[in-house]
Amino acid sequence: MESVQRVRKGDVRAIAKMMSLAETGTERAREALGEIYRHTGRAHVVGLTGVPGSGKSTLVGALTGAIRETGRTVGIVAIDPSSPYSGGAILGDRIRMAGLTGDDGVFIRSMASRGALGGLAGASLDTVDILDAAGFDMILVETVGVGQDEVDIVQAAHTVVVVSAPGLGDDIQAIKAGVLEIADIHAVSKCDRADAAQTVSELNGMLTLGRPLKEGARWKPPVLPTSAETGEGIGDLLSCIDSHRRYLDESGELETRKTAMLKMRILKSAEDVLRRRLRRGGAELEELIGKIRTRALSPHGAARVLLASVFGKSPPD
Amino acid sequence: MESVQRVRKGDVRAIAKMMSLAETGTERAREALGEIYRHTGRAHVVGLTGVPGSGKSTLVGALTGAIRETGRTVGIVAIDPSSPYSGGAILGDRIRMAGLTGDDGVFIRSMASRGALGGLAGASLDTVDILDAAGFDMILVETVGVGQDEVDIVQAAHTVVVVSAPGLGDDIQAIKAGVLEIADIHAVSKCDRADAAQTVSELNGMLTLGRPLKEGARWKPPVLPTSAETGEGIGDLLSCIDSHRRYLDESGELETRKTAMLKMRILKSAEDVLRRRLRRGGAELEELIGKIRTRALSPHGAARVLLASVFGKSPPD
Repeated sequence: MESVQRVRKGDVRAIAKMMSLAETGTERAREALGEIYRHTGRAHVVGLTGVPGSGKSTLVGALTGAIRETGRTVGIVAIDPSSPYSGGAILGDRIRMAGLTGDDGVFIRSMASRGALGGLAGASLDTVDILDAAGFDMILVETVGVGQDEVDIVQAAHTVVVVSAPGLGDDIQAIKAGVLEIADIHAVSKCDRADAAQTVSELNGMLTLGRPLKEGARWKPPVLPTSAETGEGIGDLLSCIDSHRRYLDESGELETRKTAMLKMRILKSAEDVLRRRLRRGGAELEELIGKIRTRALSPHGAARVLLASVFGKSPPD
Repeated sequence: MESVQRVRKGDVRAIAKMMSLAETGTERAREALGEIYRHTGRAHVVGLTGVPGSGKSTLVGALTGAIRETGRTVGIVAIDPSSPYSGGAILGDRIRMAGLTGDDGVFIRSMASRGALGGLAGASLDTVDILDAAGFDMILVETVGVGQDEVDIVQAAHTVVVVSAPGLGDDIQAIKAGVLEIADIHAVSKCDRADAAQTVSELNGMLTLGRPLKEGARWKPPVLPTSAETGEGIGDLLSCIDSHRRYLDESGELETRKTAMLKMRILKSAEDVLRRRLRRGGAELEELIGKIRTRALSPHGAARVLLASVFGKSPPD
């Protein structure tokens, strides 16, 4: 496929076009992605997540600069929590990274987390594949750490960095608790601030008190203070990400993770196909809604009827 | 079904047990929910959402107090963004509402947004049904305004309140943009703070500049300053919620919304069944993963094979 060849040569327009095609979820998209997939497996995929206000976009910008200084190229997939109605791509966060956009060794793709035609997880992992096939050395996937899909996406990375910031409110901290456990590396942002030391020591305390490491796991997630402002700790963060990649290779954990990731991808892709199929229910769906409204059927009962009509028989539980 | 009868009598233990049963997603759960559903349709369901830090939990507490003062009973479904590992139910937010827990007219159910066996949206709407069948007059559904599932849940309410707070950071504001458009009512929290007036006027400005109202829609979302601290505006918020309910009834928009909501529920329930069915792929899934790893198949290709094996033939696109 000529378009795939152009992607592999790193043709920026071909890459962007392939990403747009991938998002359509059509048969043509799946064919192209099948060919793309054959040329993947080389990049180091790093997921970065954190609660809103954690400063992760700024950190992604600084980290990208540090990676570029080592001569490596960087693809960035940024999942925006903005809406399709209010404009799609973000906004201030991306603009802060604009210092990098003149650089051929950096490719940034924003994806809206709402209103994706197919599933968000599937679409963003396809985008990662395209960047991988295009030869980018490192791929940074940035999502906000809320929502099952967002967490799935980040967990599909080889290395997961959870970004925490000093001085956030109570309910933000509560959200953070949910993503802390998926971290391979903890980065504390804004460590030029006076209250950052407390966040670092709280995290260290939490990790000491937390669950013991998984049997056989030899990687203990470090807590790294960073500041995109002063540049402090950015180099350490990159070194640590590189160490984690070596750990994955040497320990065999990379294989375990890839298996889990592929299982998730197969299921998400299958779910996307089924979801699209169901949503073409049309006239029948109207009839079912009528029956629910008269309480002749419950929503779950109607779902059963719909499944039976789409798939011939209702799939067993 | 005896358990359903006990729920209808408002038996607190029966309600909690039914909610736990609903979360299992089994055939028995679906049967019970089918019977529960016949007794629903009376409650006014109010969704409250806002970004982390918006103070929505505190506002839910104050609003609940105001509703109780009118003699009405309140069921609360709080979707926690915490993880199943780190303890499940929340935390500081809920405890702030503890002043209400001695009251028989209030029932609070927390649900973790991660690790739900079935889909989060389906499970939480089942919980709303149970509270409705149990006779609660108003049901408040609280979620954080990030993530497709969370937004779906809130949109299934009759009346949607979006909570904004003064003085939040840039990327939090960006997230807010995604949920502003689903608001029937805007509540600004913490209006005892000096910078709240600015938030109110920014919201008013945004609404004036925003998209025109949908054709025929006569409800213009008001912006209400509130303070759970001083009690300011809490009564106004309740009056406004009640007005919105009357508007829905009189304009016929309630019917339109219910149709959209039921469509969503049927599809989510069908998707949940399919998702569970797919996840029993077992040995075959291992084989597919092996083929992907040798690049003999792509993830999308493997999904096709899985679908064909589960459903006899691959469903057409």
